[in-house]
Amino acid sequence: MSLAALLGSDLPLIQAPMAGSQGSALAIAVCAAGGLGSLPCAMLSAEAVRNEVAAIRAATVQPFNLNFFCHSLPAPDAARDAAWRAQLAPYYAEFGIDPASIAAGPGRSPFTAESAELVEALRPAVVSFHFGLPAQELLARVQATGAKLLASATTVAEALWLQERGVDAVIAQGLEAGGHRGHFLSDDLSEQLGLFALVPQLVRALRLPVIAAGGIADAQGVKAAMVLGAAGVQVGSAYLLCPESSTSAVHRAALQFADAGHTALTNLFTGRPARGIVNRFMREQGPLNAAVPEFPLATGAVAPLRALAESRGNGDFSPLWAGQNAHGGRPMRAGELTRQLAVGFSGI
Amino acid sequence: MSLAALLGSDLPLIQAPMAGSQGSALAIAVCAAGGLGSLPCAMLSAEAVRNEVAAIRAATVQPFNLNFFCHSLPAPDAARDAAWRAQLAPYYAEFGIDPASIAAGPGRSPFTAESAELVEALRPAVVSFHFGLPAQELLARVQATGAKLLASATTVAEALWLQERGVDAVIAQGLEAGGHRGHFLSDDLSEQLGLFALVPQLVRALRLPVIAAGGIADAQGVKAAMVLGAAGVQVGSAYLLCPESSTSAVHRAALQFADAGHTALTNLFTGRPARGIVNRFMREQGPLNAAVPEFPLATGAVAPLRALAESRGNGDFSPLWAGQNAHGGRPMRAGELTRQLAVGFSGI
Repeated sequence: MSLAALLGSDLPLIQAPMAGSQGSALAIAVCAAGGLGSLPCAMLSAEAVRNEVAAIRAATVQPFNLNFFCHSLPAPDAARDAAWRAQLAPYYAEFGIDPASIAAGPGRSPFTAESAELVEALRPAVVSFHFGLPAQELLARVQATGAKLLASATTVAEALWLQERGVDAVIAQGLEAGGHRGHFLSDDLSEQLGLFALVPQLVRALRLPVIAAGGIADAQGVKAAMVLGAAGVQVGSAYLLCPESSTSAVHRAALQFADAGHTALTNLFTGRPARGIVNRFMREQGPLNAAVPEFPLATGAVAPLRALAESRGNGDFSPLWAGQNAHGGRPMRAGELTRQLAVGFSGI
Repeated sequence: MSLAALLGSDLPLIQAPMAGSQGSALAIAVCAAGGLGSLPCAMLSAEAVRNEVAAIRAATVQPFNLNFFCHSLPAPDAARDAAWRAQLAPYYAEFGIDPASIAAGPGRSPFTAESAELVEALRPAVVSFHFGLPAQELLARVQATGAKLLASATTVAEALWLQERGVDAVIAQGLEAGGHRGHFLSDDLSEQLGLFALVPQLVRALRLPVIAAGGIADAQGVKAAMVLGAAGVQVGSAYLLCPESSTSAVHRAALQFADAGHTALTNLFTGRPARGIVNRFMREQGPLNAAVPEFPLATGAVAPLRALAESRGNGDFSPLWAGQNAHGGRPMRAGELTRQLAVGFSGI
């Protein structure tokens, strides 16, 4: 069975879920053009997910994907948090922020029993997971809804782990990808592979379809991924400039600046390594810093700096998630971009 | 003009020069199969280069490539060297090596006036450079011989720099590549790009042909690189297991071990970041270590450890250069491998 048949979409093309930069509008536009639209749920309340799904269903009968994070919530560590805030004290002073006023950030929620309930109620055609999979009992509930399951792998070991647990296809997240690295069996970043190495290795190792992700931004990239043996692709950063995305103004601008080509993996914004355009905060404190609180607790400390800087049109403290091929693009409607990418599927 | 026409070879396929792992025999076998064989000169005396070139010319009339490094030799730094050897003292003790007995290593030689003389005398069809280009006056002498010039770029900025200086084609070295990273304008490793991002960016930015390198190990990889816009490919690690390579026994074995998939960039062996299979020395001291002497001076300190360990069939202290797609292969004659790779050029 082709990946498109598995997903129920016209094209074997998934719009990558990008929490914080898109909601139903982007998913709807991609669905309308034949791709599989995705709704990132990690930063949404259950009610918000319900509303967004209602919006998608009001606009399209096409299948769509609900995406969830599967991290374990760490125990709060007040000492580590205080030490990190102390390290950021010069920034708070610069912006006139009272460190005592800083609330814990919204963070990102993992997949819980409430999420399983939501999936049972909403019955999306596809559910995708990042950072591994939820606990077996919760996973079984998702499987029982009939949803097709996707999950990200960054190594052969992770892909085999996912296959054993019954996912329907594996997303091969190359090192080029923007946003959070999906690794979950090891946090040794040297194990992360470029897409040129990862896709053929997963294709050889798995009996499941492999979906290539990371650095795919045009039809040639789609075609090259298919040549490497992928059954389909997941594209994220290329959609960030679409009017249907909710990408912030500073993020949009950064993506079009000449230096957008310099991205790095940073843990400064959330506590987990994620690829974003290098900005002042990353240059001065990272991009990787061992003192950062654990994911997702790091969000709180930088939030007020980000908010104040953004209010001045400045992305110095914002996570400017982007892949290594995200810059140089122009704004384009998501449907048009999807159709341009789809050209890569012809003549394989 | 096609890249093959530029190089004078039947195929737009370059066998990557791999100093320390191959000499004329591999180059000859690749030339005979229609690729462009390469002779790495960085670790050879002028006399050895002359002998190797004579061997190539005795075996084939096909064009071949002489490859040189273009680093600047750092001033010796006795204090830094002593500190590094002190850090390695437990290993010397373990192997019963007298630290006072350790000579400076053979290192790697940059391109000098003597190298230019050699090129003028030997007149290879192609000369390729790593770590930038030699000084303008030396470069002009190479150009005056009529040799076609290739050089490695790891970023768009480096590729433009090379194009301005008159190279005939640029080698896009993706982060997947084995051996030394070729970066020369910045040593910020976060600027290094996966091949999926690097090739399209260089193709867009340059008027020159782009040669894709890094993670290409089979015909599908060749085809995918061509789909991304490359004019040809350079393949290295895949040739390491060929009988015509001089790859050491421990290196050959490591390439076939199950854990060969875990490579990392390390500066421990030479002073510059290079990708190799993770071994004991890399796990315990790196893979990157700020105390390592500057390239190529780091070679000396580890040399006796490497020699003794290798004599026991152990690669714990050897540079096991390999790309991210180098493992899982079987020994194959270089001609057969070249013909298998060449299938990737058909039906683009």
